Amino acid sequence: MNFTLNEAIEVLERTPRTMQHFLSGLSPGWLHCHEGEGTWNAVEVVDHLIEGENTNWIPRLEWILQEGEGRPFPPFDRYAHMNEQKDSTIEKKLTDFTQIREKNVARLRVLMNDEGDALERTGTHPAFGTVKARELISTWTLHDLTHIAQIVRVMAERYRADVGPWVEYLGILKK
Amino acid sequence: MNFTLNEAIEVLERTPRTMQHFLSGLSPGWLHCHEGEGTWNAVEVVDHLIEGENTNWIPRLEWILQEGEGRPFPPFDRYAHMNEQKDSTIEKKLTDFTQIREKNVARLRVLMNDEGDALERTGTHPAFGTVKARELISTWTLHDLTHIAQIVRVMAERYRADVGPWVEYLGILKK
Repeated sequence: MNFTLNEAIEVLERTPRTMQHFLSGLSPGWLHCHEGEGTWNAVEVVDHLIEGENTNWIPRLEWILQEGEGRPFPPFDRYAHMNEQKDSTIEKKLTDFTQIREKNVARLRVLMNDEGDALERTGTHPAFGTVKARELISTWTLHDLTHIAQIVRVMAERYRADVGPWVEYLGILKK
Repeated sequence: MNFTLNEAIEVLERTPRTMQHFLSGLSPGWLHCHEGEGTWNAVEVVDHLIEGENTNWIPRLEWILQEGEGRPFPPFDRYAHMNEQKDSTIEKKLTDFTQIREKNVARLRVLMNDEGDALERTGTHPAFGTVKARELISTWTLHDLTHIAQIVRVMAERYRADVGPWVEYLGILKK
């Protein structure tokens, strides 16, 4: 096991501003490209991350601490963000993400400092059964990384034909 | 084809500061983890990107404009950065990358503004044969994206065991 709370927080607190630097001011061509029907563009990934801050990570952590394994936590709707307001700019969304993440990281520190064994506390996932608080926090961290990878992969797809013969050297274009 | 010079530059000029935001101040555990013997950690990826700025992209573009298809450009040593000074900090490397990228993007604008058809000029790649200037610039852009994806994938690997049963939901951990 490699997880420590402080190192997980290092990633969690960097993700929003990293995305702000990368996505703010990009042309619509980059922000709206996707990998085909039913796949997400970069803006929709940000919507999904905001939704997770609101309804997934901290609420589930609080559920574990309050309910233990007694009651499974409610399933998370991974498509809830598809109902988000479409008229907000990417800059506004990234600011929202940054602010709610800051608030949630502060809450995470409080929740995990309350008692010595908080990281080892267990709850019941509706599909997986018993899960630990530290597994949930590890997953929150890797969820950021998986969506950063998704954003750059989706953008790379846009130039698949443009790179000509170099397509075979670019790992990101491997299917 | 989706390539335009201005949109390619949008990505090229964002990558270094994006990496600065994400990697500066991270614990050694994140910066030095890798995917096994012979694979690169995040610091080595940055070394590789700096090496590309020095010896690959702009030099090859200049070669195309000067030599045309007459002489193939010299092969690029993808492992040259392994000889980099190991005692430099990640913060210093990221500053170096930012500065040389700024210089190279400025040079790119000059080279491509010199003549109307510069993007369509052709050269000879030692392995691929005829390639166009715009294919090289498209590849430079996707090369950034592929290495951003690599960095987050390498970091995610570190928590593979820590996420417990969520391993099956995390695309970044798919082999």
